[in-house]
Amino acid sequence: MTSILEIGKRAKAASFIMAEMSDTDKRDCLLRVAESIVDNADRIIDENKKDVVLAEERGTSPAMIDRLKVDLKKIEAMAEGVRQVAELPDPNNELLETVTRPNGMIIEKRRVPIGVIGIIYESRPNVTADAFALTFRSGNACILRGGSDAINSNTAIEQVIREALSKKKPGIEESVQLIKDLSHDSVNELMKMRQYVDLLIPRGGAGLINNVVKNSTVPVIETGVGNCHIYVDKDADLNKAVPIIVNAKTQRMGVCNAAESLVIHDAIIDKALPLIYEALHEKNVELRGDKRVMEILNDSKDVVSATDEDYGTEYLGPVISVKTAFSLEEAIYHINRYTTHHSECIVTEDKEAAETFLKRIDAACVYHNVSTRFTDGFEFGFGAEIGISTQKIHARGPMGLNALMSYKYEIRGNGQVRP
Amino acid sequence: MTSILEIGKRAKAASFIMAEMSDTDKRDCLLRVAESIVDNADRIIDENKKDVVLAEERGTSPAMIDRLKVDLKKIEAMAEGVRQVAELPDPNNELLETVTRPNGMIIEKRRVPIGVIGIIYESRPNVTADAFALTFRSGNACILRGGSDAINSNTAIEQVIREALSKKKPGIEESVQLIKDLSHDSVNELMKMRQYVDLLIPRGGAGLINNVVKNSTVPVIETGVGNCHIYVDKDADLNKAVPIIVNAKTQRMGVCNAAESLVIHDAIIDKALPLIYEALHEKNVELRGDKRVMEILNDSKDVVSATDEDYGTEYLGPVISVKTAFSLEEAIYHINRYTTHHSECIVTEDKEAAETFLKRIDAACVYHNVSTRFTDGFEFGFGAEIGISTQKIHARGPMGLNALMSYKYEIRGNGQVRP
Repeated sequence: MTSILEIGKRAKAASFIMAEMSDTDKRDCLLRVAESIVDNADRIIDENKKDVVLAEERGTSPAMIDRLKVDLKKIEAMAEGVRQVAELPDPNNELLETVTRPNGMIIEKRRVPIGVIGIIYESRPNVTADAFALTFRSGNACILRGGSDAINSNTAIEQVIREALSKKKPGIEESVQLIKDLSHDSVNELMKMRQYVDLLIPRGGAGLINNVVKNSTVPVIETGVGNCHIYVDKDADLNKAVPIIVNAKTQRMGVCNAAESLVIHDAIIDKALPLIYEALHEKNVELRGDKRVMEILNDSKDVVSATDEDYGTEYLGPVISVKTAFSLEEAIYHINRYTTHHSECIVTEDKEAAETFLKRIDAACVYHNVSTRFTDGFEFGFGAEIGISTQKIHARGPMGLNALMSYKYEIRGNGQVRP
Repeated sequence: MTSILEIGKRAKAASFIMAEMSDTDKRDCLLRVAESIVDNADRIIDENKKDVVLAEERGTSPAMIDRLKVDLKKIEAMAEGVRQVAELPDPNNELLETVTRPNGMIIEKRRVPIGVIGIIYESRPNVTADAFALTFRSGNACILRGGSDAINSNTAIEQVIREALSKKKPGIEESVQLIKDLSHDSVNELMKMRQYVDLLIPRGGAGLINNVVKNSTVPVIETGVGNCHIYVDKDADLNKAVPIIVNAKTQRMGVCNAAESLVIHDAIIDKALPLIYEALHEKNVELRGDKRVMEILNDSKDVVSATDEDYGTEYLGPVISVKTAFSLEEAIYHINRYTTHHSECIVTEDKEAAETFLKRIDAACVYHNVSTRFTDGFEFGFGAEIGISTQKIHARGPMGLNALMSYKYEIRGNGQVRP
């Protein structure tokens, strides 16, 4: 098994070759990879079956098995994802700014790849193809560390990718390196390898992300956890509020941009809450409310008292917390206290209240009369997404190709010295 | 003494007020602070004298005492620095991108302050005023942790700033928090306080920076270390090369953008090296060279053999290492091996060689026929500088006000839900 240090070295060396690859070459390589994924469907599916059998033996839940399983349809989706990334414009070398200084030297600020990007992720094998495609298109090398439950699937996909690359452009296959050592030590080593790894992106649950954030000395972009709120203002149009709440909570439950908490203004709660309850109850969503909520919905089915912990919980399932606010200020204060800085929404017809909310809420994406479910690279029109950043450094919100880029200053002159 | 946790809480609370402050208010506050610094010159100088006496008692070097000492001229320079920052345009709320999606929702990407920025620095008390001004102008709150040798000076400057702010806009003085607890524990606590601190910028020597990079769980921007190279290509114009080398090495020795190493093409070294030696020797610079260099300069004064360690050393003084390269490729390989990713220069009349160098060298600033000493926020026209980033995440190279900003997405609609 290749050592983690050796993997780092190879990826770093490959990153220099990647940085000089032409737009066309990167595109062609990715199209070739997409083709190979489809051509090698049987091989990937066979290896995936090993993972599925092992998962079943371990008593893994059907929902998790479903995420792990790869079939022909998922293979096609994987290939199509790679094809779509292939067709994205090359961000490399883009001129961001240029200035001629009084002494005649010309400063150009140009986009360049970051170098080596490490991605640590869980279960779903499609992330292997997906993360590779995005880092490759942006001219970076990648080191992938998937979950142990998908190791056979991930290894097969990595091999198919590497074979396709080496046929197209020998040597360039070193730009993708899957870590097969599943020990904790291998992750720890990866997280400390500052000399070879420029950025780490953890993709997965809160436990995985916190572990990386706490232990990495390589810079990290924190992604994903979303305790998203919908605030129903006193001047909300309930014909907008109810559909937005139902969409944000139930259109897909297990995702980071799903709503997990409602804040409702006291002046409208008597009218709003029964309608909201009815709509959510129909979708089998349990409400966890404060005293005011319990008074209004007394004896209703699937309504229980909220604890303080509820307001800080990302349920990722059919539960939502509900809090009464007696003013816009209280709503903003409550949301800023419990926010994970992901996506937050106000529903109101009062423009001034909306602007106050958008400015004062400290989150990557702040919505006025729109479902939080739109926080997504594709929905934003980026054509791709490597994750959703919930921190403020480097990239915030949905991360497209540009989030995988750095820049450099190129300065040209004719002998300028500093006086 | 206020606890570090309490300092974090207060700074975070202040950051929300800062984020909403108008351009005019921020400007006026800074101008008032500049005035107060001058008005309180005696008080600051008196407190500074205590630090100087203590430093002398400890046997501190005259050079260090000189950096520590504050006199009327330095007070005026400090105030002028704050005034200049006051006059910079406000980056807050700047519209970076806007797009109307097919469903009618409008996405605006706007610049917003990062929040709370911690700055850990050494000796020079002017950094206290400087770092405050930059974070304040960009709408951030700051937590400052200066060196123990300047604690009385830093405390006096912080008090003058806070008094001026509280007179101008009561409460806003909480946006600047100096840590007076000089224990290691206080720095450690600051570096782990993710809930209140959004970014840490260490400013100082390699030891300080490495400590922060290794131990912080708060995102860090690495600054400063510069093992900068000048590569004299075979097609170099020596009338440009020699002045650039002398400028980059000797115009100011103790700074991060000073040259520390020369790489000279074998085809030109016989002609170039004696001229370079003569010019540097006149400035009392010692050369540490490889075999080829020793052959050419045999028996010359102040020329010694270089070790491998020399090529990795940032001397910050009158020494420079010299290496022979037999090709452009070898020069690039050598520089990419020893670079600290700060500033690197090629001197050549061959445009193609220059472009290859600029593209392939992995550094924040790459120069063609220009001294590396220009890597500086003021020289780049940013009007200010909080430091020079040598990493690729968030900000690279000289960091002006925009490096202290994040962004957020504001999405406005009329009830859009995700299909």
